[in-house]
Amino acid sequence: MPHIALPPEHIGIRGAMAFRPDTAGPLNELVEVLLAGPSTLTKGERELIATFVSSRNCTHFCASIHGAIAAAHLGGDEALVNQVKTDFMQANISPKLKALLAIAGKVQQDGKLVTAGDVEAARKLGATDLEIHDTVLIAAAFCMYNRYVDGLGTVQPDDEALYRERGRMVARDGYVTTSKQYLAESAATASSH
Amino acid sequence: MPHIALPPEHIGIRGAMAFRPDTAGPLNELVEVLLAGPSTLTKGERELIATFVSSRNCTHFCASIHGAIAAAHLGGDEALVNQVKTDFMQANISPKLKALLAIAGKVQQDGKLVTAGDVEAARKLGATDLEIHDTVLIAAAFCMYNRYVDGLGTVQPDDEALYRERGRMVARDGYVTTSKQYLAESAATASSH
Repeated sequence: MPHIALPPEHIGIRGAMAFRPDTAGPLNELVEVLLAGPSTLTKGERELIATFVSSRNCTHFCASIHGAIAAAHLGGDEALVNQVKTDFMQANISPKLKALLAIAGKVQQDGKLVTAGDVEAARKLGATDLEIHDTVLIAAAFCMYNRYVDGLGTVQPDDEALYRERGRMVARDGYVTTSKQYLAESAATASSH
Repeated sequence: MPHIALPPEHIGIRGAMAFRPDTAGPLNELVEVLLAGPSTLTKGERELIATFVSSRNCTHFCASIHGAIAAAHLGGDEALVNQVKTDFMQANISPKLKALLAIAGKVQQDGKLVTAGDVEAARKLGATDLEIHDTVLIAAAFCMYNRYVDGLGTVQPDDEALYRERGRMVARDGYVTTSKQYLAESAATASSH
């Protein structure tokens, strides 16, 4: 049960965002730019970084929904997503993405752990400054989203099928459209009671 | 030295924001709503929460600048800011703010550490659901800002007078105006070289 009176028809971060639309605006915009905006990293790669950090922070909702979005972008390859969560060095992903995940893993603990050597290694494998910047900010941002979702005690269902369905929807329609659809649905639910 | 080619005329988060304006937009908007928007928590109280979390994360730039802004809002009381950083339970602040700082301290570690008892304690001391929400999100957001600043290896000067001056400016003119002023100044500096 949430620690404060969040709208009960929403799960995870959606409940917190419905409670406080003024902060939901920039929170949604940030994730849209980082994970779905123009980038030389694919959407699948960026969702894997978000999933990996959320998994390290043990935030069930974020790790599940972003894992499902990542899988949807990667042709439904849930095994790859799980491999990245458990041991990304053995995953069938590019050496560049492995170097970026190593940086993300350090940011998840403490930004000060990132060394010039970590960055140089990523650069040698083809990472650009913008890709390194975005990796650091995606990892940092999910340290926020994860704490926000956990700190308010939001509802985080166990139902894997639910995340799979929503993940496909976000991968297909994007964050903004899906988010608006949830709000419209919940308004309809609320007004029918 | 920063890990990537950040504009050298900016310190701390300003360099990272100048490098990537598309993400700077929502990052600035979020801090504006949380720390300077309408709230039943004073600006001084909210800046103390941001300072406390940044101090716990050992991010010198954020702890220094938000500590300076907090002090400016609190009549220049730097001793109080330092007391909150080192042992807030002994500080001359309201019992309600102490309860909110206790929640923020848990979010800084892991959102899952926040208990119904922590929230109930804050509520008994007068905290509203919105104040509890904002405390959780301020703490979570600074776990992002701190990691962003540290993870990119931004320049974080030691000069206390510099933070004091900027802190007074932000407290007087707000985040948005001060931020625009920095950008205009740096553009002038850049074009004069």
